[in-house]
Amino acid sequence: MNDQKLTATIDRILLPDREAIEAAERHLNNLTKPPGSLGKLEDIARQAAGITGELTPDLSTRAVIVMAGDHGVCEEGVSAFPSEVTPQMVYNFLSGGAAVNVLARQANADVFCVDVGVNADLSHSKLLGRKVRYGTANMTRESAMKKEEAVAAIIAGIDTVEELYNQGYRMFATGEMGIGNTTASAALCAVLANMPIEEAVGLGTGIDEARRQHKINVVNRAIDRNRPDSADAIDTLAKVGGLEIAGLVGVILGAAALRCPVIVDGFISSAAALVASKITPRSVPYMLGSHLSHEQGHGQLLQAVGLSPIIHMDMRLGEGTGAVLCFHFVDAALLIMREMATFESAGVSQG
Amino acid sequence: MNDQKLTATIDRILLPDREAIEAAERHLNNLTKPPGSLGKLEDIARQAAGITGELTPDLSTRAVIVMAGDHGVCEEGVSAFPSEVTPQMVYNFLSGGAAVNVLARQANADVFCVDVGVNADLSHSKLLGRKVRYGTANMTRESAMKKEEAVAAIIAGIDTVEELYNQGYRMFATGEMGIGNTTASAALCAVLANMPIEEAVGLGTGIDEARRQHKINVVNRAIDRNRPDSADAIDTLAKVGGLEIAGLVGVILGAAALRCPVIVDGFISSAAALVASKITPRSVPYMLGSHLSHEQGHGQLLQAVGLSPIIHMDMRLGEGTGAVLCFHFVDAALLIMREMATFESAGVSQG
Repeated sequence: MNDQKLTATIDRILLPDREAIEAAERHLNNLTKPPGSLGKLEDIARQAAGITGELTPDLSTRAVIVMAGDHGVCEEGVSAFPSEVTPQMVYNFLSGGAAVNVLARQANADVFCVDVGVNADLSHSKLLGRKVRYGTANMTRESAMKKEEAVAAIIAGIDTVEELYNQGYRMFATGEMGIGNTTASAALCAVLANMPIEEAVGLGTGIDEARRQHKINVVNRAIDRNRPDSADAIDTLAKVGGLEIAGLVGVILGAAALRCPVIVDGFISSAAALVASKITPRSVPYMLGSHLSHEQGHGQLLQAVGLSPIIHMDMRLGEGTGAVLCFHFVDAALLIMREMATFESAGVSQG
Repeated sequence: MNDQKLTATIDRILLPDREAIEAAERHLNNLTKPPGSLGKLEDIARQAAGITGELTPDLSTRAVIVMAGDHGVCEEGVSAFPSEVTPQMVYNFLSGGAAVNVLARQANADVFCVDVGVNADLSHSKLLGRKVRYGTANMTRESAMKKEEAVAAIIAGIDTVEELYNQGYRMFATGEMGIGNTTASAALCAVLANMPIEEAVGLGTGIDEARRQHKINVVNRAIDRNRPDSADAIDTLAKVGGLEIAGLVGVILGAAALRCPVIVDGFISSAAALVASKITPRSVPYMLGSHLSHEQGHGQLLQAVGLSPIIHMDMRLGEGTGAVLCFHFVDAALLIMREMATFESAGVSQG
């Protein structure tokens, strides 16, 4: 049942609309500026046209989806923060006090927090409860989750996007919360992007170098123990990934299937993007890179997905904070398409 | 008279408020995030506190000042566009159709266009007329302008900022229009930042490599002909600079003297920032870097000033377009200071 839904979603992801991209390009070249001089703003305008099939789509109703899940591997002492912070931060998201809430309000975006795998019973009227299991298992000892659980978490993401789409949302940003999730993300990078583990493992929320060496060892052991099949992204996701990462894979695939742009946040979100890109490369044109995280493996990871970051802020918070900041750039690109004068209308000579 | 005003303005530029910076730092470290994890957003919050002396200053009334001037060196064939585009674009700014107008509306900023040296008689109710002369002279043959003219253009910038400050504006972005001005900016980089001319000269609005080689030769000849004194920024500005660049030097110094943040746009604006930094290094803490231009010398130029770019968009339009996009980040930083929950208020455990 879940497998069928996943296959159907993947099959619905189409190539971008080539004609709309070309029409956007023609319009951009008539505007009063040297051709191409707005750089990535022009890329975004073309991409939005390709995704939606419209030159100036209405993307004003947008959501950041914060997937939350816990990680059994925290038993190994990989994080600067205890696991109890995951549910605590979920309540912070729900009451509007976290960084992503502040930045989402600024960008006229709504924050939706999904419990896809928090290791606690949560209760809040605004929480979207789609728990697949109470956190992953410790991946140094066994598979983080069963393959069916990984698929169920992906479906939770797809269902969330579909529900929000039906409410009118047309653009999405990925966010996550899960103490320990840079460890799982590093493992995914090592297996699926063939990154050396030492390069994939960073300082997360703020460990020191000695703890990072330990974290490298933990990732090594997890991969040795589980032997994920690098040609099978879902197998890898199940063995060394995370529930919230799987949820974001679903958000990305679901957005692509509905022809909505999805802005990819930092290291963990990009690991989800990597998994989605391996499930189907047709999902990539629906993704926008946002910021380059301070987390050391992020640049290499984005390259592996085929994304290019816009903001270089040394942020390393996650939650969707970098992605939400990029809503302003999508708005800017669409306003350029709508409002800028042409050479003819402004009486400006072309070069 | 102008010399006295310039000296008085420079003398009014104070060091940032250290206590306010420390208070901002303490507040940031109480917010529900790992310390420092919002990266440059936190830098901006501290900087805004240091500049204004307030933890959450009201910077909602903001202006982008577009200084316009022509360049005699265009006779040498250095640009992809003819000089007539300068006045044409001035009218485009005044009627609201240029890229900077679109992006400024998005950022709730007002655009003010100043004729400090356009080589045409302009007439428009919204134009701020502060013309010092009708374009610079061809710097390959003589000094681009007299030193008194450079100072007068700087004062035009200071006066503009003071006028807008009196109208309530508290944050500024630099913008410019002047066909030929990447050539003058490259010359300033070569003399004042000691950059090799080949590295300082880029493709501007879109010349080819052969024309770039010619442009390198033009800059070489201008420097040989005028022998600017690299220890005297105003001498250099007069000999190989531009009127709109001088105007922006005034905008930066004027903003610093009034304790207002000033966001520095791309290559030409950064050349103005370089001149301002040489006139007084105390102006630098009032500047914010914005984007990294596609113009090849920009990264090195920003380093010479001591600024770090946030947005990597491959933009190369000028006008203030990159700077205006950064208003969103200043807003974001101040919203973080105002609205984010603390560890205590949200009941979140610290690491």
